[in-house]
Amino acid sequence: MTNPTQITAEPGRPFVDIVREFDAPVDVVFRAHTDPELFARWTGPRGLTMEILAFDAVTGGQWRYVSRDPSGAAYGFRGVFHTVETDALIIQTFEFDGAPDQVSLGVARFEATDRGTRITTHTVFPSLEARDGMVASGMEYGVTEGYARLDELLAGQQ
Amino acid sequence: MTNPTQITAEPGRPFVDIVREFDAPVDVVFRAHTDPELFARWTGPRGLTMEILAFDAVTGGQWRYVSRDPSGAAYGFRGVFHTVETDALIIQTFEFDGAPDQVSLGVARFEATDRGTRITTHTVFPSLEARDGMVASGMEYGVTEGYARLDELLAGQQ
Repeated sequence: MTNPTQITAEPGRPFVDIVREFDAPVDVVFRAHTDPELFARWTGPRGLTMEILAFDAVTGGQWRYVSRDPSGAAYGFRGVFHTVETDALIIQTFEFDGAPDQVSLGVARFEATDRGTRITTHTVFPSLEARDGMVASGMEYGVTEGYARLDELLAGQQ
Repeated sequence: MTNPTQITAEPGRPFVDIVREFDAPVDVVFRAHTDPELFARWTGPRGLTMEILAFDAVTGGQWRYVSRDPSGAAYGFRGVFHTVETDALIIQTFEFDGAPDQVSLGVARFEATDRGTRITTHTVFPSLEARDGMVASGMEYGVTEGYARLDELLAGQQ
């Protein structure tokens, strides 16, 4: 039983907002976002393999990974970390190789709750069309399943 | 006589779009955006001194500068370069120390025209309020005067 993932994509605004709680302490949840070995174990939907090519989760660092489906099709992503504040905040850019130069900017805040940790993310897209395209591409499925995988990873670490 | 600066901040959208032409070739205009010594000579309104603390204008690089007015008040800014494509494209984040964690993302495209170079910038803000605040803070004045200073710098380089 996983916690609900609340995803909001308000009409007419190029934003996606996501709120999710996790049953683990902030430092453990945060580390799963900054340690490349841990990050690769939960990000994205099941069945895809993740190859991390760069992942320097510090302010000014860069990241790049390639996700492959069972047919071998590869999906590359890259970005830079504008801000990384331990156990509190990650602000980063995000670009999918399949939509070059359509860069989004995501802000993820981590805070302690009675249950463990709440992550609140706010992502801004360069246009409404880019936001709608990301939503239509199955973002909700990827996020929800990725977070369910993160639950499993966190459960194994406590 | 400078070329007009077209600034658009559409109601209800967290974007600012700017179009401006320059009477100089693309490579010269682009270099004024990536060479820190040149960049410091035109960015922002007259009367403020610019101290560049970091300026690594390559994909994945960081920048930081402090602008000081005649009274000595200091305004710090920093960001990261998501993409730098020579003579074509700069995508970067932007944060003012006075509004911490309110990060915007700017895309600047450079293209050759009959007159010289057109720069088209599209900046996305994390909220409508952040966009409106930036506009209200005198952004138009800063951009227009900065570009007029860039005209002067470019005229001296040809």
